Amino acid sequence: MSYQSIQQLLKTAPTGTEVTVKGWVRTKRESKNAVFIALNDGSTINTIQAVAEAGQLPEETLKLITTGACLAVTGQLVESQGAGQAVEVKIANVTIYGTADPDKYPLQPKRHSLEFLREIAHLRPRTNTFSAILRIRHALAFAVHKYFNDNGFYYLNTPIITASDAEGAGEMFRVTTLDATKPPLTEDGKVDYSQDFFGRETNLTVSGQLEGELGAMALGKIYTFGPTFRAENSNTTRHLAEFWMIEPEMAFYELEDNMNLAEDFVKTVIRYALQHCADDLTFLDSRLKDEEKTKKKEEQSELGLLEKLQFVISNEFVRLTYTEAIDILVNSKPAKKGQFQYEVSWGVDLQSEHERYLVEKHFKKPVILTNYPREIKAFYMKQDPDGKTVRAMDVLFPGIGEIIGGSQREDDLDKLTARMQEVGIEPEALWWYLDTRRFGSAPHAGFGLGFERLVLFVTGMGNIRDVIPFPRAPKTAEF
Amino acid sequence: MSYQSIQQLLKTAPTGTEVTVKGWVRTKRESKNAVFIALNDGSTINTIQAVAEAGQLPEETLKLITTGACLAVTGQLVESQGAGQAVEVKIANVTIYGTADPDKYPLQPKRHSLEFLREIAHLRPRTNTFSAILRIRHALAFAVHKYFNDNGFYYLNTPIITASDAEGAGEMFRVTTLDATKPPLTEDGKVDYSQDFFGRETNLTVSGQLEGELGAMALGKIYTFGPTFRAENSNTTRHLAEFWMIEPEMAFYELEDNMNLAEDFVKTVIRYALQHCADDLTFLDSRLKDEEKTKKKEEQSELGLLEKLQFVISNEFVRLTYTEAIDILVNSKPAKKGQFQYEVSWGVDLQSEHERYLVEKHFKKPVILTNYPREIKAFYMKQDPDGKTVRAMDVLFPGIGEIIGGSQREDDLDKLTARMQEVGIEPEALWWYLDTRRFGSAPHAGFGLGFERLVLFVTGMGNIRDVIPFPRAPKTAEF
Repeated sequence: MSYQSIQQLLKTAPTGTEVTVKGWVRTKRESKNAVFIALNDGSTINTIQAVAEAGQLPEETLKLITTGACLAVTGQLVESQGAGQAVEVKIANVTIYGTADPDKYPLQPKRHSLEFLREIAHLRPRTNTFSAILRIRHALAFAVHKYFNDNGFYYLNTPIITASDAEGAGEMFRVTTLDATKPPLTEDGKVDYSQDFFGRETNLTVSGQLEGELGAMALGKIYTFGPTFRAENSNTTRHLAEFWMIEPEMAFYELEDNMNLAEDFVKTVIRYALQHCADDLTFLDSRLKDEEKTKKKEEQSELGLLEKLQFVISNEFVRLTYTEAIDILVNSKPAKKGQFQYEVSWGVDLQSEHERYLVEKHFKKPVILTNYPREIKAFYMKQDPDGKTVRAMDVLFPGIGEIIGGSQREDDLDKLTARMQEVGIEPEALWWYLDTRRFGSAPHAGFGLGFERLVLFVTGMGNIRDVIPFPRAPKTAEF
Repeated sequence: MSYQSIQQLLKTAPTGTEVTVKGWVRTKRESKNAVFIALNDGSTINTIQAVAEAGQLPEETLKLITTGACLAVTGQLVESQGAGQAVEVKIANVTIYGTADPDKYPLQPKRHSLEFLREIAHLRPRTNTFSAILRIRHALAFAVHKYFNDNGFYYLNTPIITASDAEGAGEMFRVTTLDATKPPLTEDGKVDYSQDFFGRETNLTVSGQLEGELGAMALGKIYTFGPTFRAENSNTTRHLAEFWMIEPEMAFYELEDNMNLAEDFVKTVIRYALQHCADDLTFLDSRLKDEEKTKKKEEQSELGLLEKLQFVISNEFVRLTYTEAIDILVNSKPAKKGQFQYEVSWGVDLQSEHERYLVEKHFKKPVILTNYPREIKAFYMKQDPDGKTVRAMDVLFPGIGEIIGGSQREDDLDKLTARMQEVGIEPEALWWYLDTRRFGSAPHAGFGLGFERLVLFVTGMGNIRDVIPFPRAPKTAEF
């Protein structure tokens, strides 16, 4: 192809050869004898230094070489005489592709706030922090595909536009081509969706799980990895209206197999990132250390980013039942001292403060909680013989809380149908889902992982809007 | 994990060991001395034969072992005495997970029409044809990610919900949470989208290209691979309302680099499928041969499926300009004999019949056409110095026509803005897109490939609804 990326060049090009570097100016520095231009092309966090002798470049050219301008530089790759880089390019020729007026270009070589950068999400990938995040995001996505491919799973593209609601809950976005002002109405004054594009009311999917189960009951092991949507009007640092989910579903897996898979999966992809994104993670690690220094001592993390990732991949996750966890929580110091905001007792849904106590204080390890009360979990989870709990599992991570939620699925047609009726879901509406239990049913299990939660954890960022290129949230759909 | 897939087992298990096979019954056959059960678990197109001696299994068990039932079979793996398989399982124990009432289960061991199977898309992955298609689809998707990862591209998740229309055309699906019957109105009687979830009118994306370009102008080389949508009310064998697109965008690539990439990319992923899906492709190859036999001689393909794939990867694509192609077409036999349905002259958009003539009759090779008239191409394509053509490229394949469309992108801010105004796109609406030309612009290029078109080509299927698990089309959103 037309050029060698800076990543390749720093890795493989021998000094003494003539090279062409194409990239954007990060900084320009002039000394008495020379001009130093730091170029970055996005392939790596590292810049390459291009050096011209003082007076070598015409003044009008030099004036245009400002932060953000795009150049092609040709010259000899030589050992660098300065500190900070092994090699540099001795400029023979410069072509300016595009300038960046310093009075107008928003990304100047100074510290910009994450809030400001969110407003210019179309340019923020040109910064060190966001290019590092996006390269790590790529590596994690590839690791996900590689993991499942290596382990005999088939990638299944479940539908994005759907007429069903997997969870029987969750606010959804309507998808329509009907006239917005005057939709056609039925005789009783309701919108006549039979005239809509799909001939029925349709929404954006909240989960590919139900269709994923159809795949697993035919192909054995499948996974989805696609966008999902929640129309929840909440502006938090943990929620997006549009996010990417990974949902494996496996025939013949029971709860323990599911836990083994979840633990092995998440460790493998984090290990991949550590192996393939060392430069970017080191950069984010030190970025986080700087940020931590501005916090009060008691709010600072005990572990740095790299230490935290190493910690997760090198420890066995603790596994215990919800009931055992409630015991621990009820007898904990914060419970006895009334320090939990939400009271804890058997039957309640655990709050973030409880999950974090278990993970960060009590076990100091990632935790897998299982066998939750059926009342607080979805209808499709397999019921335990005691009639009280279901074969659910949540994987809890330090700092982030729940990163994976899953279960063995109810494979008994009668129990599943009865449970649907109890929670108010019409079995007829999911006739196709029930067919998998009607014909050739089998034990099976699966889980879901919000991809941005994983990227958040691996990059150490604090706001989920900073780990997806173009976040979608209430009142936010620019770009 | 809890079991070995049939694919692993056939590949690695030594005869003499005790194995457990879990899967669905494809067929059951009884002879005087034995019962033969063909089991499939979706991991491979191959079944494994499980054999019991006559009388070994209780009558009530045997009765439940029908096509579609799900079993676990334990026994010794032995060399098969019958033809058709190398090994088989000598049944010691059978567990029936789920039955499939032969009077109700729709998938009986006989030939079902593709139309019928489309109506039971939730069960069709349990057939040989559809499981083969879905495994090949998986392999192609993985090959796409692997190709780009191996070549220094970063995967970029461009937004699905968007306030912009990349092509300045294309029917779109509206995404909304406003009350469908009585939406809030502005004073002049229009829908007040400022009250909608995103505070503005939003639609499902028709392409990630424009946001992809933002990525390329920061990270160098990116690709998207996600769902895109067209609300076109056309029921054809070539169009879906929801389909998956692959869109690489590369800084510093010009038209020729773009062609080199497209050709290398598509050959590499097809080669991957040939290497990794031999059994499935062989099955589809013979399926297609059977289908061809039912056609009239003159309508039969010259090449079988495997031959066609080999042909594409082993030939250099022919490259010529649109203008040269028009010359060939104008002077062709069908043009002179008036056999083209649409007349051909410089300036017209080529029809499928013209593309197929070039590929299948004239060159008998895949073709890349370049430098189309600017009037028939999108506003963002780089204008040639002649003022008439743009640096577009379309890759044309036998049978399928256009499989890839791309171009070098216009990187000159003034030319791009002028062209937008000519075609009626408000530059202000795409301020963020124009910023990439305003700040640090550079030559760049990219292309788009409809993933289902690729799967259609590689599987040899005739209807695009058969190469995606759950097709979305007018009046079609079941499952």
